[in-house]
Amino acid sequence: MSELHWKSAITKVEPNKLAVRGYKLDELMGRVSYAQMVYLLLKGELPPENTGKMIEAILVSSVDHGTTPPSVLSALTVASTGAPLNAAVAAGILSISQFHGGAIEECMHILHKGMELIKNDGKTLDEAATAVINDYRAMGLKLSGFGHRVHNNDPRTTKLFALAKAYGVAGKYVELANAFVARMQVITGKTLPLNVDGAIAALLCEMDFDPILANGFFMIARVPGLLAHIHEEKTRQKPMRKIHPSDVEYDGPDERSL
Amino acid sequence: MSELHWKSAITKVEPNKLAVRGYKLDELMGRVSYAQMVYLLLKGELPPENTGKMIEAILVSSVDHGTTPPSVLSALTVASTGAPLNAAVAAGILSISQFHGGAIEECMHILHKGMELIKNDGKTLDEAATAVINDYRAMGLKLSGFGHRVHNNDPRTTKLFALAKAYGVAGKYVELANAFVARMQVITGKTLPLNVDGAIAALLCEMDFDPILANGFFMIARVPGLLAHIHEEKTRQKPMRKIHPSDVEYDGPDERSL
Amino acid sequence: MSELHWKSAITKVEPNKLAVRGYKLDELMGRVSYAQMVYLLLKGELPPENTGKMIEAILVSSVDHGTTPPSVLSALTVASTGAPLNAAVAAGILSISQFHGGAIEECMHILHKGMELIKNDGKTLDEAATAVINDYRAMGLKLSGFGHRVHNNDPRTTKLFALAKAYGVAGKYVELANAFVARMQVITGKTLPLNVDGAIAALLCEMDFDPILANGFFMIARVPGLLAHIHEEKTRQKPMRKIHPSDVEYDGPDERSL
Amino acid sequence: MSELHWKSAITKVEPNKLAVRGYKLDELMGRVSYAQMVYLLLKGELPPENTGKMIEAILVSSVDHGTTPPSVLSALTVASTGAPLNAAVAAGILSISQFHGGAIEECMHILHKGMELIKNDGKTLDEAATAVINDYRAMGLKLSGFGHRVHNNDPRTTKLFALAKAYGVAGKYVELANAFVARMQVITGKTLPLNVDGAIAALLCEMDFDPILANGFFMIARVPGLLAHIHEEKTRQKPMRKIHPSDVEYDGPDERSL
Repeated sequence: MSELHWKSAITKVEPNKLAVRGYKLDELMGRVSYAQMVYLLLKGELPPENTGKMIEAILVSSVDHGTTPPSVLSALTVASTGAPLNAAVAAGILSISQFHGGAIEECMHILHKGMELIKNDGKTLDEAATAVINDYRAMGLKLSGFGHRVHNNDPRTTKLFALAKAYGVAGKYVELANAFVARMQVITGKTLPLNVDGAIAALLCEMDFDPILANGFFMIARVPGLLAHIHEEKTRQKPMRKIHPSDVEYDGPDERSL
Repeated sequence: MSELHWKSAITKVEPNKLAVRGYKLDELMGRVSYAQMVYLLLKGELPPENTGKMIEAILVSSVDHGTTPPSVLSALTVASTGAPLNAAVAAGILSISQFHGGAIEECMHILHKGMELIKNDGKTLDEAATAVINDYRAMGLKLSGFGHRVHNNDPRTTKLFALAKAYGVAGKYVELANAFVARMQVITGKTLPLNVDGAIAALLCEMDFDPILANGFFMIARVPGLLAHIHEEKTRQKPMRKIHPSDVEYDGPDERSL
Repeated sequence: MSELHWKSAITKVEPNKLAVRGYKLDELMGRVSYAQMVYLLLKGELPPENTGKMIEAILVSSVDHGTTPPSVLSALTVASTGAPLNAAVAAGILSISQFHGGAIEECMHILHKGMELIKNDGKTLDEAATAVINDYRAMGLKLSGFGHRVHNNDPRTTKLFALAKAYGVAGKYVELANAFVARMQVITGKTLPLNVDGAIAALLCEMDFDPILANGFFMIARVPGLLAHIHEEKTRQKPMRKIHPSDVEYDGPDERSL
Repeated sequence: MSELHWKSAITKVEPNKLAVRGYKLDELMGRVSYAQMVYLLLKGELPPENTGKMIEAILVSSVDHGTTPPSVLSALTVASTGAPLNAAVAAGILSISQFHGGAIEECMHILHKGMELIKNDGKTLDEAATAVINDYRAMGLKLSGFGHRVHNNDPRTTKLFALAKAYGVAGKYVELANAFVARMQVITGKTLPLNVDGAIAALLCEMDFDPILANGFFMIARVPGLLAHIHEEKTRQKPMRKIHPSDVEYDGPDERSL
């Protein structure tokens, strides 16, 4: 034991034995979902089944958003130079930052601020939302998680909240997020619907995740999407092509039902 | 439409409508697993249910391997400088390379070489394995996917193959991988069991994935593990500490059953 | 000209003609130093000769600090996985962050705060230093740029300031930095000498660089050092070795004079 | 001393004393150039003065190539998401890969192959060039370092070779590179002039650098260019803008002389 001895509470590795948070990995395989493993790794405990399903739906909702997000464009740019998969994925991950994905964490902070006013100051949902909105407006700040550059009625948000209700995950934070939308309309006269980042923020609050990890959920969700785009670049395009950021046409399968 | 117009077959994005490979994202949410989405993104079609379960088990098997892999150590080193999540995850991803994760892709190539000898030259499993092993030995090359620095009877391999049998995914490539182990023992006198990389390689061959994507499965699987370690570093350790690569003690929950 | 047309003022590229900030690259080659090019790129004009020498000395001062900085350890960790040069350098760059290199930018802000008190409020150097120190102490913040974990009389700082005097670059900001050291001793009773980050901060302030770019100087300086360490790892060490963060012995040339 | 004890021959760090390859850093400052430090770090010895000037000219020649290279576009894409400097620079570095910068290393291998035929088989420059060209053509491979997508008479190449002659660095490898150009014209009927990558390759061969490090020179040279573009993005453009890869207009200073 050296002076640099340190401790970690995540995975115990012994010869022919691996246990994550106390559970043997081979016992977990085939019995728990990847989404449950995400929860186990990040919170230390296996989630109730419905909570696992909620994580799963969040990940599925964010798996890809076409070719235009900067994470895809930076990954494709790197891939087009002949760089290996890991370099291209890393460049994609590096784009998941303040203005791309970052809204989840910022919206979690907004909702936590509102919830503190409810818990500590006895404010109602509407009063709390109003107070936080006015604070942000006074500081000249935008409220992250509301409004979207493409969608004004994001089907992912609607579905996430429907599933959250069905799974019993929706609670005070979902109510508060809805109160924000309503109060913003009254205060600003503008309809800024909750976007998918805002919806995920509300649900991560419900499940009591550390806001530091918010962007992490987005990264977990997006890696398969990044890989699909990088693979397409490497198999379908010429190296070093000029990649137009928006003049792209979808030519995949026609719309189809499950 | 500019001269740089290009096409992509992955996700169609329209206002209030998102479809991955033709399936509306909000219809997929709550009905398909993240593992099925990985398959849909990387292969273009939804997998049969059991194939989805196989992907899920592969991802669960590789989600973490404690603090010693270089992907974790590079991520922690970056995290300890106060860098944000994305920089630390990217540094982890950059370590998933030739000698760390790379064995999956190399082992897929080995198995494909063997399978070609079977299909094109009419060799038996044993003859094909023998031929490839002798080729590699003649070139002075190690066979990736066999042997492990910690485990000689990796419980993840056993479980992956048991699940592959149960799910109907195990076939010729799994047989061939086992033939390699048997022939290597005869030829070299050494027992080099299939490791988890080799098992995953055989299963990705069974499911007909492009070997270029092999390391990608490892990346998808490991991001939650990296996040757990980065979060632990940021919440439990002091910035800029000297990170010992092996003098680490597990102090998480005792072994427990599902 | 598309709707995405944009402008850049850095380099004009035409067939067989390249001009940086208006100067033809082939005319610059052989006549200006790399350090002068750094200034030209980042400020838009060629520097006076002595200012170019100042930049050169700053870069030379920060080119390497042995094996222990996290930038080197993350680069070596990635290099040991067989990853190519670019991945290892990128991992090193990702470690140049808040607690590693970040002190330069933070110290520039501290000095700018002090200088504003002098310019706008008519305070003396000592009064300005005292006010800023007290502000930071009241907020419980450390003053970046002062003190070092290894050196208490950093020879690089002494030399940088001697050169700055000789080159005519030293001015009000250098005086202010020295006033901070003196006032901190009076206020706290502790001697916290200016470290190399603090010295560079003062000189970048003298040359009127944007603090956003501070870490950039550190990156420029360190890339050759990172490359030397990565090359040593790849040529002298076995892949996937466990890299001890401090139990390293120098075995290069004995001390020698120019 | 632990079992993980290791050695490094680069920099000795003691309290108040730092020596690179045996030379005290504060003695180097103000007396040697950054380019000489690059040589010292990567080769272990200080270069003759003219060799240092050669390195300097190589670095100056490659410091920037406008907005269109993928290293700049990936860096800008990441910067536009609000990511800090280190993430954007790292994304730029990750683009310096096989098809972008990689030609230097590949061309060094080509020249080394030719030189071996001269040294070991007694071939003339022309015979050696012919043999290597024919080998590559038989394998269906392009010869890296010859031809450029923008320039057919790159002023940087001409100047680099003129300086190499003046500095006494030009020798057999420069002659061989020229022989390649001449023989390719005879063999293929096409004029493929040596590009800047090819010229740098010849000069790095003359100075006996390890080809593994070739891309490293390009990285060292480009970091200031990347920083200038990232800074322009952060100060002149809106976050999350769509970055057109070629519809860019130079609006910097008019052409001017030194």
